[in-house]
Amino acid sequence: MEAIIINTGNELLTGETINTNASWIASKLYHIGIKTKRIIVIGDNCEELKRAIEWSMQEKPDILIITGGLGPTHDDRTVECLSKALKTPLKVDREAYKMIVEKYRDINLPLTPERVKMARIPVNAKPIKNPVGVAPGIELKIGKTTIYVLPGVPKEMMGMMEKHVIPKLELETRDIRSITKTVTIDGIPESSIAPILKKIQDTYRGLEVKSHPIGSEQKPKLKIVFRLIGKQSLKPESIVDNAIKKLWELLDEASSS
Amino acid sequence: MEAIIINTGNELLTGETINTNASWIASKLYHIGIKTKRIIVIGDNCEELKRAIEWSMQEKPDILIITGGLGPTHDDRTVECLSKALKTPLKVDREAYKMIVEKYRDINLPLTPERVKMARIPVNAKPIKNPVGVAPGIELKIGKTTIYVLPGVPKEMMGMMEKHVIPKLELETRDIRSITKTVTIDGIPESSIAPILKKIQDTYRGLEVKSHPIGSEQKPKLKIVFRLIGKQSLKPESIVDNAIKKLWELLDEASSS
Repeated sequence: MEAIIINTGNELLTGETINTNASWIASKLYHIGIKTKRIIVIGDNCEELKRAIEWSMQEKPDILIITGGLGPTHDDRTVECLSKALKTPLKVDREAYKMIVEKYRDINLPLTPERVKMARIPVNAKPIKNPVGVAPGIELKIGKTTIYVLPGVPKEMMGMMEKHVIPKLELETRDIRSITKTVTIDGIPESSIAPILKKIQDTYRGLEVKSHPIGSEQKPKLKIVFRLIGKQSLKPESIVDNAIKKLWELLDEASSS
Repeated sequence: MEAIIINTGNELLTGETINTNASWIASKLYHIGIKTKRIIVIGDNCEELKRAIEWSMQEKPDILIITGGLGPTHDDRTVECLSKALKTPLKVDREAYKMIVEKYRDINLPLTPERVKMARIPVNAKPIKNPVGVAPGIELKIGKTTIYVLPGVPKEMMGMMEKHVIPKLELETRDIRSITKTVTIDGIPESSIAPILKKIQDTYRGLEVKSHPIGSEQKPKLKIVFRLIGKQSLKPESIVDNAIKKLWELLDEASSS
């Protein structure tokens, strides 16, 4: 299964906010066997969101996660833009409205247009309860793609992911395992190990082998990451273990030749 | 001036690495008056890079910054993919070759195909010296867009940005100021301040006013960010100051009514 993530928010484009939402979501997905194909960051801008959604939907991903812009203010326009991009009209959803009424009743505040706005979702969508804040999330199926629209406030987004999105996706990836193993190698520059890594990459289909220099070519230290997502029945963990064994063998050969 | 940033690397799509390169670059650009329009993160995948470049170039940005995939290994394919995307052939660049020869001569290592590979750049490009590591960066002009291809290793990317890219761009944005001011407000939920912020947004053209809840609707605390990029002669700082004054006035009015 493949996912695309779209994060909205001008603060992500000025560098003020580091996009930890994207890495948190990608990591959660990866651990249940779902690969993130792209992450797209745009501002609070309808035209940009429309283009990002269109560009993403061309790929027919299984999952499209959009964060940010669900709140009550003038620049919280994700739902309105989504509706334009997908050409689906909005309605005040009965269930979403109830969620919002209850939240504000608890804190003794009246309903205003800004508050009711958060109950407007596409006609063919379902609201997702916000376990932390107020604005509901949205779940929507278009073709083979399930779109999840989540808040940009990290604790609200995380709450919805953990309580709703991940448990649901886990049901579909029960037999998939994602394996990541890392080895660290001292004293060999990345440019010297390159042909060896290529040999391993070519031997094990689907495996990903990637070197990350954590020293320099002069004082080399490398982190080598092995990654594989696959069906449990195909034993992805032992494939990764074999590849690591092969790496040590090839390094031994190279140093003795 | 507008920029688009493309960051490549599978580690960014598994959540292992938080994309601090993007926020660091966006912040540097913002401070010299250049707005980042989009950030796109993709894996080590030629087809994806091609699509991301094509999608970006449709916007005719002034600057396109691409990071990652310049090293010596099999998955360092950014230059090869860029050449395919832009249909510009590659050559071993004399200047880039010299940079690499010198680096490896210093550490007494012979030139191998993997090392020479790092000197291959598009025929119409110029190499950028790597002040930290080995692989040169690339500068390339296509239409009105200047493309900078930089390493993914943060200290190498930062070195090239600080020594080469930023000083060059600063020459073109000398009369532009970017102003960001933040005020914190206690005790008002975001949904209550929303109409006030809309009024300010509508009054000051080009200004961006954005609220970030750092408390909750129940125990509200808001960070309100005011942002404006503009010519120094138009006094962007005093526009921001006036908008903040206006905010306090409207809040006073609201609390006394």
